[in-house]
Amino acid sequence: MPERDDIVVMKFGGTSVAGPQEIKRAARRIVSAREAGNRVVAVLSARGKSTDELVAAAFEISDRPDPREMDMLLSTGERISCALASMAINDMGHKAVSLTGSQAGIVTDSSHTKARIIDVRADRIKETLGKEQIVLVAGFQGVSTDSRDVTTLGRGGSDTTAVAIAAALGASVCEIYTDVTGVFSADPRIVPGARKLPVVSYEEMLEMSASGAKVLQLRSVEYARNYNVPIHCRSSFEDLPGTLVLPESETMERPIITAVTHSDDESRVTVVGVRDEPGIAGRIFTALAEANVNVDVIIQNEPVGDDALADLSFTVDRDDLPTAVDVIGELGEISHSVRTDERIGKVSIVGAGMRTNPGVAAKVFEVLGREHINIEMISTSPIKISCVIPADEVKHAVQSLHAAFDLGDDAILPDDPTGENPTVPGL
Amino acid sequence: MPERDDIVVMKFGGTSVAGPQEIKRAARRIVSAREAGNRVVAVLSARGKSTDELVAAAFEISDRPDPREMDMLLSTGERISCALASMAINDMGHKAVSLTGSQAGIVTDSSHTKARIIDVRADRIKETLGKEQIVLVAGFQGVSTDSRDVTTLGRGGSDTTAVAIAAALGASVCEIYTDVTGVFSADPRIVPGARKLPVVSYEEMLEMSASGAKVLQLRSVEYARNYNVPIHCRSSFEDLPGTLVLPESETMERPIITAVTHSDDESRVTVVGVRDEPGIAGRIFTALAEANVNVDVIIQNEPVGDDALADLSFTVDRDDLPTAVDVIGELGEISHSVRTDERIGKVSIVGAGMRTNPGVAAKVFEVLGREHINIEMISTSPIKISCVIPADEVKHAVQSLHAAFDLGDDAILPDDPTGENPTVPGL
Repeated sequence: MPERDDIVVMKFGGTSVAGPQEIKRAARRIVSAREAGNRVVAVLSARGKSTDELVAAAFEISDRPDPREMDMLLSTGERISCALASMAINDMGHKAVSLTGSQAGIVTDSSHTKARIIDVRADRIKETLGKEQIVLVAGFQGVSTDSRDVTTLGRGGSDTTAVAIAAALGASVCEIYTDVTGVFSADPRIVPGARKLPVVSYEEMLEMSASGAKVLQLRSVEYARNYNVPIHCRSSFEDLPGTLVLPESETMERPIITAVTHSDDESRVTVVGVRDEPGIAGRIFTALAEANVNVDVIIQNEPVGDDALADLSFTVDRDDLPTAVDVIGELGEISHSVRTDERIGKVSIVGAGMRTNPGVAAKVFEVLGREHINIEMISTSPIKISCVIPADEVKHAVQSLHAAFDLGDDAILPDDPTGENPTVPGL
Repeated sequence: MPERDDIVVMKFGGTSVAGPQEIKRAARRIVSAREAGNRVVAVLSARGKSTDELVAAAFEISDRPDPREMDMLLSTGERISCALASMAINDMGHKAVSLTGSQAGIVTDSSHTKARIIDVRADRIKETLGKEQIVLVAGFQGVSTDSRDVTTLGRGGSDTTAVAIAAALGASVCEIYTDVTGVFSADPRIVPGARKLPVVSYEEMLEMSASGAKVLQLRSVEYARNYNVPIHCRSSFEDLPGTLVLPESETMERPIITAVTHSDDESRVTVVGVRDEPGIAGRIFTALAEANVNVDVIIQNEPVGDDALADLSFTVDRDDLPTAVDVIGELGEISHSVRTDERIGKVSIVGAGMRTNPGVAAKVFEVLGREHINIEMISTSPIKISCVIPADEVKHAVQSLHAAFDLGDDAILPDDPTGENPTVPGL
């Protein structure tokens, strides 16, 4: 086997392989990496909107498509991308071989449509790299050990495929090529002056992915942290450095706040008048977990009178709302009623320096209060503060917080004109 | 394992799974067969024009797509059909499981884009049938033993997949569902009065497939004959008996002529002034065979003068014309020049009774002569006569021969009103 530094894993997202021109561009990138002396494994997503089209085809057939068959269906998209990119690379005078997730040794559990990788048996990848060939791997998919069925890893799963392969091969870097140039201090579509972050830590990236940053799938960041895989998140359309995601020790000076993230694809469920009985919240959240519903922010307001009952609110992905309501309904007579808000907003600020800098939360509340944005729920971690707010206030909140914490381009100190080693002025 | 009579293999072509309605219709057919007490394996083609679209996508990337990658690409189409049909069946209250060619144990050689099945390792199919489940198999594809790569069997390969699985399982019948109601005495688009044939022998069907009848892939008929698999070729849009393809002993009274077939997707190559040297024709056809070019009709006109040179003409599939010309070019100075006719026509009559009835050839030539259709080349077998004619005369020739040999609906004798046991009046 070649040395560790020799291997590069490159992942190209759907927009980076959307059409023939994009596929050829990705192929040239892959060939350049190979010609620079690396052994290259590239993981590809399905072309553009093709996964959406396959999902739509399934729902034309069935209201509740069988999950095993959904995986058989959806896994074809990445195979098409890989085969086409391989043709392009072969035309460029290099030998490329495309592999399905199964052929690449991506072994998963049997949770169809959201399988987890449990092993990467990279023998065939290594063998192919050993023949001086470029390996293309269909992202987002694997094969289940027990039933030998095709599985998929859920939306964004190709990021996880790439990181898992990088970990298995001991690759020097896992490059994630996408339609943005890196990870930003806020969504540039909302904050035009948002700054590209040269480096973020795994922990920060985890909080950002969990709170709405779409650039990397949450699970891929977890995987990278667990296996210490350096991620380089960069543009497939220009050849500039993007954002490195690294262990915290390796990242340089820690800004207090790194980024503002947001989400508007969550819903809120309020269980009104919860029966006053020990363990009832435990029953609710156990049942939700068993139904695979991911609960984000939770609040319970304490009953004020003697015979008053508590209300329990929590947020879930909007896709999971019907399931969450069903689950609570199945628990029987536990409350007066269940209320839902289909669309709520959430704004979060993330920064590793928050740990050692009190007063950040106070400043967040002060900024939002000054802007007359009502905070409905709050959740915190050592390096993150999230506020649930009305969905139509999200844009305003992101802009206000980004400005108040001075996270924009102009935050780069004049003595660091490269922006390679940024610091953010203290509060 | 269930008894032989228990298993039915059903194959649905591209038009039979073109859209959601067609897929549901095919699913209902499959469920009906299951509810009638059979164990059912269904082999599906890619939806409608989807293989053409994938081929076009490949040619947008490359003028000469790598064959291994072409197979990875094209094999996705049938997987999509199977997954969607499986969803539909699961919705109808039956358990269906879709399998890729590889999962179904279709083992082939490594000739990408035209692989041959060398083994069917049907363990997983049997195991799944044993669980009372319906098995859907992606047609047209397999996996190569040596390199564990996805392979495809060439156009129409799903017929062969179905027959091969039927042979491996000892199925009672292999039903080929298509957009026509059976095998006809001529193409009904050309001869409106063409008759649906209740029964044809393997030998006749082989000659018909080889001479232009598109209803069954040639190789599937060879396979069926070798393994004695009864084929029932029928419509997926109406529930009427179609055409049975059976061993000759089982077919009833033999008409002298069964059908008129035609083709206009062949080209002719004429090697003008072939060097007068022993073995030169052998060199030419060996080289063509090595390049996988299938030669159909061959004629060589003998040199007439002392120092005269012979001309050698042969026909090939139009797709193979560029390769054929290349191959001859690479043989060096063997002739004056090479001339090609890109589009030639061919009309053939096929009938097992021809063996014992002389005079059929004479009648064919007489009919074509009377109609002023110039016969450019002739090729015969014991049960077939083919004439190469100008492409624009094909329709006229088919109509004239069909009428002259009295093959139409009105050829059914009045004392057999069912048409189940047809005879054709003697000549």
